[in-house]
This record gives sequence, C-alpha cells and structure tokens, in this order.
Amino acid sequence: MKPDHLPPARPDLAEILAQVHDHVRPLIGQGKVASYIPRLASVPIDRFGMAIATLDGELFATGDADELFSIQSISKVFTLTLALEALGGDLWKRVGREPSGNPFNSLVQLERERGIPRNPLINAGAHVIADVILSSSATAREDLLGFVRDRADNPAIIMDEDVAQSERDAGFRNCALVNFIRSFHNLDNDVERVLDFYFHQCALQMNCMDLARAFLYLANRGVCQRSGVPVIKADRARRINALMMTCGTYDASGEFAFRVGLPAKSGVGGGIVAVVPNAMSVVVWSPGLDDKGNSLAGAAALERFSELTGFSVF
Amino acid sequence: MKPDHLPPARPDLAEILAQVHDHVRPLIGQGKVASYIPRLASVPIDRFGMAIATLDGELFATGDADELFSIQSISKVFTLTLALEALGGDLWKRVGREPSGNPFNSLVQLERERGIPRNPLINAGAHVIADVILSSSATAREDLLGFVRDRADNPAIIMDEDVAQSERDAGFRNCALVNFIRSFHNLDNDVERVLDFYFHQCALQMNCMDLARAFLYLANRGVCQRSGVPVIKADRARRINALMMTCGTYDASGEFAFRVGLPAKSGVGGGIVAVVPNAMSVVVWSPGLDDKGNSLAGAAALERFSELTGFSVF
Amino acid sequence: MKPDHLPPARPDLAEILAQVHDHVRPLIGQGKVASYIPRLASVPIDRFGMAIATLDGELFATGDADELFSIQSISKVFTLTLALEALGGDLWKRVGREPSGNPFNSLVQLERERGIPRNPLINAGAHVIADVILSSSATAREDLLGFVRDRADNPAIIMDEDVAQSERDAGFRNCALVNFIRSFHNLDNDVERVLDFYFHQCALQMNCMDLARAFLYLANRGVCQRSGVPVIKADRARRINALMMTCGTYDASGEFAFRVGLPAKSGVGGGIVAVVPNAMSVVVWSPGLDDKGNSLAGAAALERFSELTGFSVF
Amino acid sequence: MKPDHLPPARPDLAEILAQVHDHVRPLIGQGKVASYIPRLASVPIDRFGMAIATLDGELFATGDADELFSIQSISKVFTLTLALEALGGDLWKRVGREPSGNPFNSLVQLERERGIPRNPLINAGAHVIADVILSSSATAREDLLGFVRDRADNPAIIMDEDVAQSERDAGFRNCALVNFIRSFHNLDNDVERVLDFYFHQCALQMNCMDLARAFLYLANRGVCQRSGVPVIKADRARRINALMMTCGTYDASGEFAFRVGLPAKSGVGGGIVAVVPNAMSVVVWSPGLDDKGNSLAGAAALERFSELTGFSVF
Repeated sequence: MKPDHLPPARPDLAEILAQVHDHVRPLIGQGKVASYIPRLASVPIDRFGMAIATLDGELFATGDADELFSIQSISKVFTLTLALEALGGDLWKRVGREPSGNPFNSLVQLERERGIPRNPLINAGAHVIADVILSSSATAREDLLGFVRDRADNPAIIMDEDVAQSERDAGFRNCALVNFIRSFHNLDNDVERVLDFYFHQCALQMNCMDLARAFLYLANRGVCQRSGVPVIKADRARRINALMMTCGTYDASGEFAFRVGLPAKSGVGGGIVAVVPNAMSVVVWSPGLDDKGNSLAGAAALERFSELTGFSVF
Repeated sequence: MKPDHLPPARPDLAEILAQVHDHVRPLIGQGKVASYIPRLASVPIDRFGMAIATLDGELFATGDADELFSIQSISKVFTLTLALEALGGDLWKRVGREPSGNPFNSLVQLERERGIPRNPLINAGAHVIADVILSSSATAREDLLGFVRDRADNPAIIMDEDVAQSERDAGFRNCALVNFIRSFHNLDNDVERVLDFYFHQCALQMNCMDLARAFLYLANRGVCQRSGVPVIKADRARRINALMMTCGTYDASGEFAFRVGLPAKSGVGGGIVAVVPNAMSVVVWSPGLDDKGNSLAGAAALERFSELTGFSVF
Repeated sequence: MKPDHLPPARPDLAEILAQVHDHVRPLIGQGKVASYIPRLASVPIDRFGMAIATLDGELFATGDADELFSIQSISKVFTLTLALEALGGDLWKRVGREPSGNPFNSLVQLERERGIPRNPLINAGAHVIADVILSSSATAREDLLGFVRDRADNPAIIMDEDVAQSERDAGFRNCALVNFIRSFHNLDNDVERVLDFYFHQCALQMNCMDLARAFLYLANRGVCQRSGVPVIKADRARRINALMMTCGTYDASGEFAFRVGLPAKSGVGGGIVAVVPNAMSVVVWSPGLDDKGNSLAGAAALERFSELTGFSVF
Repeated sequence: MKPDHLPPARPDLAEILAQVHDHVRPLIGQGKVASYIPRLASVPIDRFGMAIATLDGELFATGDADELFSIQSISKVFTLTLALEALGGDLWKRVGREPSGNPFNSLVQLERERGIPRNPLINAGAHVIADVILSSSATAREDLLGFVRDRADNPAIIMDEDVAQSERDAGFRNCALVNFIRSFHNLDNDVERVLDFYFHQCALQMNCMDLARAFLYLANRGVCQRSGVPVIKADRARRINALMMTCGTYDASGEFAFRVGLPAKSGVGGGIVAVVPNAMSVVVWSPGLDDKGNSLAGAAALERFSELTGFSVF
C-alpha cells in the first residue's frame, strides 16, 4: 500500500538515481579525502554510491552503494535516538538545539556557553550524548551496535577497531573537547570511557543500502518500516529531523537546507543521509569532501535529487 | 478544490484556532513588550491574535487578528523576495545563508566574515538587502509598499512614519551595522538612504489577516493564490522557506524548528508568520516577547498548532 | 642640572641618534604607507626623522625631524590627559585599562563588554574620551589645540582640515564604533560632534621636535619641563605611561614592551613617541607601517635606541 | 655598597613594610581562596606575608612571610627562564608575547591563533614552555627544582606531590588545553608528560622570603646577587620583566601596571612577586583572591608599596 500522503505520481526512482549519478559524474573524485587517520586517507576518492529505501519496502541503488565506509558523524543520529529514549526531555538540559555557526570541533561557543554544547550533532554535543548513554547502560557499545544492526536489518555490521584506535591516537581535539566539557561538570563518566565510546560509534562500517534501511524510522514517524514496531515516539522522530535540518551538516546546514531542503546528516567518511518525511530515506557516499567537511559529489547528488523529484520539505 | 497533497481529512481549522487560543491564554501578557521606541512600548501586552489563510482561499481568525501592529523583522521576507527577483543568484555573493549563532544585531560575526552578513534575515543581512533594492529601483519604498499591498490584497496598508522616525532616532546599533558593512565595501548606497529604507520597512503596519494572506505565495510554490500569477520562481519560494526555517527566529531558530517544525519569521512587534508548504500560512501576534526576542505566547501558539494538526514539515 | 637618578655617564645622544639612523637606513621605505585617505597615502615613504628632548632642556634631532606629519593616534595621549583632568578617576567607569588583544578598531570586545572600551588608547576608547572632553568644555577643539601648542611650545601647530574631512568621508568604521558605543549609552554627545572632534584630533600636524617637547611632561612626573608648572598630577602621569606601555601600540604592545621596554604611543601617520621616565622623550617618524599599523623603521629605531642606551624601564 | 642608580635617600624598607601591612589589614580575609583542589581550599584565608630582598643583600619581612604556600603560576617565570636559555629566540616561534585580553585558561584565542599561545605566562603558554624544557632535558623536573633552590638559596624547597596529584585529578581544563595545542602540532612530548611537569611546577612550595631571594636575578640584569654569576643574559632578564608587566597578572595586567607600575607575576595560591629593576624584589602572599584570580590584599599591598616608595618604573 502506497501511503496516501505521497504525491500521486511518484517518480521512477531507479531512473532518478541514474540521472543523478550521470549529473554528478564530473564531480566524483573532486574535493579531498579526510586525511587525519590512515584508514580514511586510503579510501579511493573516485567512489560514488547512492541508495534509496522507501516506506513501501523498496530499495534502489546505484554505483558503489554496497561498498562499506566509515559512517563517522552520521552515527550521531543513532546515539541521539538512544539518548533521547534513555533520558527523555531532560536531555535538553545538557545540550542545546541551536546551529553552532562555527566549525564542528570549535571550542569557542562551548566556552561562552559554559560547557553546554550547542546541539547534539556537533562533536561536543555527541560527547555529552555518549556520556548519557554510558550512564544508562553497562553495555553501551553493544547496545548501539545492536540498535544499528536492527535498524539496518544486517547483523554483519561492525565497528572497525583499526579506525577506532587510529581516531583515538589522533584525537587530540576531541580529547580537548571532552576534558573541556568535563571541566564544566557536564560529563559524569570517565574521559577515556567517553572517548572510547565516541570513537567506536564513528568507526561503524556500513554501506549506502544499510544506512538507507537504517534511517527509515525517521521517515516513518519513528516506526520501524519492516516490523511496524515503534523505535522512538513520533514527535521525537520529527524533532530529530528538525535538528538534522538546522544542524546536520556542520557549518553548512543553512546552505544545505537552502539547496536540498531535506533533513540530512553528513560524516567525514563521505556519507550523507537524508530523510524525506513520510516517504523515504536517501543515502549517498563519495569520499571527496568540500571545505566544510561534507561530501562534495554527495551534496550535489542530493541537490539534484531534490530538483528532479521536488522532494523538498519546503 | 482541495489540493491532493494535503492530508485527506483536514482538521477543522476554526476549531483548532479556538483550542490554540485557549491553550495559550495563561501565557498572554507574559514576557516583555519591546521598549526601545515609544510606539512599540505603548502596545498593550494583553493582546493576542491569530489567523490562517489556506490555499483553498479560506481565512480563519481568532482574538485580535484584525488589530494592526508593527511587523518589524517580518518585513525581511518581503524585501528578500524583492531583492532575489532583482539580483537573482548573485545576491548570495553579498549575503550568506547560514544561521548566525549569535544575537540578531551582533557585529562579531560580521567582523570575522569581513562584512558579509550570515544571512538575509538578521539585521545586517537586511541592510545589504535594502541596499540591493535601492540600487535596483528609484522608487524602492513605493515598490515595497505596493508589493505588500498586492500580496495582502489590502491597499490600505501603510508604513507608520512615527515608528520609522523613532527607530531612526534610537537606531544607533543599526547605524553602527550599516557603517560597519560599508567599511567592508558591501554597500553601494548612502548610509542614510539604507537606514531610511530599512526603518520604513520595519514600520509596515499590518494585522494577522493581512499577513496570512500576504505570505500565501510561499506556501504556494511562489504563485499568488488569488490570481494564479507567479510572484517568485518555485525554487526561490522553497529556498526562502528554507532560510526561514534555519534563520527566521533569531538565535532561537533551532529551537523553533525543533518545537514547531515550520518555516517561520518573527518580529519584535510580537508577530510571527509560519508557512505550511502546499497548504496554508499561519500568523500569530502577541506583543510579549521571550528573552530571544520572539513572541512568547505566539511561539507557544504555533507549537500547539503544530501538535494539534501534525503540520510539521518533518 | 642633571637629575641624579639618571645613570651617571649619560650617553652622547647626538652620537646615539646618528648610530640609530644608520642602523635603520635599510628599513626606511619598507612597509606600507596608510592608504585609506589621500592625504596620508601621498606621504613619501622614504622619510625618516627622530628627535630627543631631555629634562635638561636639550633637543637632539636627525633626518626629517622637522617635517610635519599627521600625528593620528598619538593624539590619544593628549586627549586622555585632558579627560583625566576633567573627570578624574570617574573616567575609569567609562573606559577600561586592559590591553585589547584585538586589532585597534575591533568591535568584538566592545560588544562583549557592553560598550565599555578596553582602554583609552584604542579607537573606541578615544571616542569615549572625546565625549568626556566635549561634555566638559564648549570649546573642546580649541582647548585641545591650545594644550598641544603649549606642550610643544609652538603656536603654529594646526589641525589639517583636509585630513579631518577626508577621515570623516572614509570613516565608516569609526562611525560604526561611535554608534555602537552610543547604543550602550556610553556617549552623551551627538554622534557627529564626537566624530568631528575625533577626526580633528587625529589631524594634528606636528613634527618630531614638536612631539618630543610636547611629551616631556610624561617623563617629568607631570610637570612642564620649561615652566615648572604642573600639567597633570604625578601619579596620573605615571599611569598614562603605564597605559602606553600596555596598550600604546595596538595589538603589538606586548611585543613593543618586550623589544623596546619604554612606554610608547604610535599613530598610522608613522609617528611613535616614547617616554624615558625621569629623563627624556624620544620621537621617531617614518611613514612605512608594519602589518600591525606601527612604523616599521620607527619601531626598529626605538629598539636600537634602547639597546644602545640601556634606557629600558625593565 | 648601595647601587648609585637608586634614589639617593632609599626609604626605610622595614618601616614601609609595617605601613603597608597596616594599610591592608582590613582587606586580609576578603576575596575567595582558590577552591578547585582541597590542598588550596584548606589554606586559612586570614594569612598575609610580605618580604623584600634588595640587591644590597638585605632581606625585610612582615607577617606570615615564612609560611610556605603553593606558588602556582609564579613558577611560569622560572620555567620561562629555563626555556629561554634552552631554546633562545626560537622560543618565540612557538609562543607569542602579547597580552591575552581573555581569562587565563581561555581556549578562544588559542583556536583563533592556531595553537600558538598568546604569551608564556598564561596556562597555554606555560604548557608549550614545559614541552620545550622536556625536550631539552631528560631530568626536567629535577632541573627546575635545582634551579629554584639555587635561586632561593634554599635546598629544602620541594614540590608538594599531593598538590600535583590533586591538580592532575581536577585538571580537565589544562588537559583540554594541552590536547588542543597538540592538535595544532605545537607540542612534541606526550600529553601526560607535559601535564605531569606542569602540575609539578605549580606545586612548588615556597615562602615569601624564598621567592624574594629567588627573583632577585630579574632585578639585577640577570645576574645572581649572591654569587655574581649570570643566570640569564641581561637583555633576556629585561624582556622577562617586560612580559611580566604586560602579561603577568592574567586579564588584570593593564590594571596592575596602572596601579602598581612594576613587573609582577601572580599565582592562584595567593602569591604575587614584583620586581623593582636595579633595586629589589618584593613578594606578597595572602590567599584571598579577587575576581580576576589575583591576591586581593596582595595587590593592594603592592599598590601601597608603590605609592609609599615611588618605586614605579613609570
């Protein structure tokens, strides 16, 4: 059954994917691969994959949509979901909901605002989210992995230990952030535990199809599309979408909302997920990043997708 | 004819308005009336009005929806529309599209970003927009007034000269901003001309019903609902909505997207307009402001409206 | 009579000047002449003058020490002296005494500190000082000119109207600053009056010998060296010297204290005055500026002077 | 032999100390004792000691001048001395010489200036200095302790391990700083080693008389007053004094220069050292701090001392 709130004549999504892929071909390989850890730096820059999962249960894909990559900051949406379920509205006493207007690992606003990160989708906010999850469960890392496997319907998903370890070795900025937040008494757990959890969530390895399936609950008012079981309350799902719209793509969120018009979250691994509420999730991956840290070909692909389908929320 | 992309069973909007009005009654009179000019300071704080205009041509209203008020920053959406039509995409060389992460009249980011305001919906951005309009027309102020009267279908709308003059007399911060932008060579017109235009746009007097009608083109892909004539291209209308979502309510835009989930623009006169794409525009007015400068009862009313109708874009 | 607190064998100052001049010859003509107004931009960059006035009444000079130049920010020391005499310690309620850590015309700190400029030797502080003087005298500009002529023992000193007018025409940043301060209610006089006074004080035309004589009161515990008449109380003279040490050379004050070790004040006209407490004043002029806005050859000359004489306060 | 550059009639320093002590008696016990570690928090607030060591070899003291306290940031002058001797002028490639204009543990400027601390007397700068010392010696901590014992002529001086350990346990902000600097590649040594050294230097226990003797080399052009052996080159001693003047008392350095007019360095243990070039060192201790983190009674004592003796450098 097709949901009645979709435009009656839904576009041919396979055809749309083909057109988008053609459109961005000249951009594939442009930008820069994230280079701060070897495992990310060695990813071939010429990759491009895209996948769509619909509430009808269909899956469409093109290019390298089945190639695993490091989801990095995309994981912040998963952990936010878990933390919201654990703590409810009290979560917002410890992290804000405003765009940061600054690069994703900036300490400036954190200082001005006394250790309360601007939102849960920047690094500082994700550290607080990690702390909340660690306080609510003794098996936090396993819980997260189980949650992601369930959402993606793929028990083979893992966290790449090499990536996690490399991130820790190079993670001076994140270590600075966590210590800084701790100095404002906005962390309950040990600094090393928080960092360990954070670097493991970033090290989740998934492909475009995994992610497309995994994000469907945010297009479906919080309900798992396959099982019909609620993952999160409908209003919380909507609010996570709102946060992705205003804060999901670092200091380019305004630009992204302007060009694409869909809630989205990007990672420095080159992945971007977008949600078309009540309809589908769209995932793109291409490791070449623009100067704001978002996938260059990926952002262009989502913009083209929005143009061709009219699937903007605005 | 009811647009087929609306949820099939549209709620009874008159009933919704009544429920919203009841819900916010305890909040009416709370907050603080803007006090920097006498004309605003003297508005009775106990006012509350709300109006909805639908693409079907219906109009619903409650409370003081026919009482005139100073639309203030809401006017920035009108001038952005005019400037986009005048300059097209080149406009974005002179003003950004990112949330500011700072109070609406801050000079900090303006300095860091060398005179390019973060977005067209903060004061600094509106000054650049005013400059663009002044450069494109010798009758800029009349053009704006004509545009607003057309949109609202009300030839009686005026700019309140007393308000404009009072704003100028008290407008040291805006004068600082304009001179500052000028020092970075991002203004072509005389400082006084820019300020004069800006203070007049802020001084537009409208009521909730005027504004509800006037904003319908943004719910209707840029097309005038009454005449069917295009006001602005569809993709530009969408993008103005995106800017309202990420930047429309000062440093509370993230919070607003989170709570209400609709593109919106507020003014210190106590008005807030919101757009339900493909469906309707909703306008609320209550002069008591919260500490971010948005109408306290107005924001609560829109949040309640969103809850009752499910009309969030997310 | 030689003051007994000078080192017993005072160096041969004429010889010192010659050595300093030789030392900096390769630097003369380097840097950039201030270019924001035509009158400053047209000054030949190859000029260099230096003069010393001692408490013994001697005057030494080399190079273009008799060529008039625009003293610009050096005038801030004169106006601070007048404002301190007018208002006493209450002055420090309206302006701070800390280095700014930011470029001289920055608005950032002014915003953070709610309109209280960091110190009286940056532009923002000088505007507040100008306001104090304007409030204390109906003939402020004449008072300042008279004061400077008296200090320098030269009734021919004037303010260059062309410079003052050009500064006003180009002075958007200063106009922004004054309006900004006004918006925090830290100015009593009309914005235009404050700017007019400020641009006239900057337009004072003096040569190195004028300035050397004019600054002797700060080397002499506030007493006029010629007449023996107190200009300002001894503790205030000391405190002005302290402010010059910590705040006198824009964002290079720490560097300057480090390299030269004497209280000093620079101007974008290329002049720098330095005070050797209880001994002499030293003035250098060369219009090529370094990237902090201080005379490049001038700073090197003062550093060499300090090395050769040992006349550091540290 | 009395140095001939002192004012001929040197005041009776014992009498001066008595007068100063009387003057500040009402202030003793005011302010707040540093509370972030138990060892500092438990110091009785009613203590006050003061000592003067002259180049003649005389020592004057009053109050609790023989009571040990934690010298904290005063140690930064000792480590700067060692690092300057180790690295020479190249040190200034890694740390600046400007006042910070911000609280002493701020990360804001560090971010803006890409990991180059503003000066060696704020925490961030001291971490870089620690790193330099660690790179130049395998026995860095012993070297520092030996240096301080030599300067103070007291082999019993120790670092308090409890204080060092407590600081480490509570040192999230410093840990953030060090990691942050490391992320900008301005640290060569392991983060933990740098922190360990830093917290041990802060944990040096000395009394006013120790410190007065220990700082005499800075009043004596770098030469040890007792042995006549050079500790540091004369120009470097002068420049350390200059840095103390512009940067030695956190964000109150301008105010301190203004009120006291002597190079000085304070610590949150309540100590302040001041240097009268070519004459003496003056040390005061009282654990109650003002809101900038400087000893409240201590600063008042130095101001009174400067007034009574006329020993300002200005």
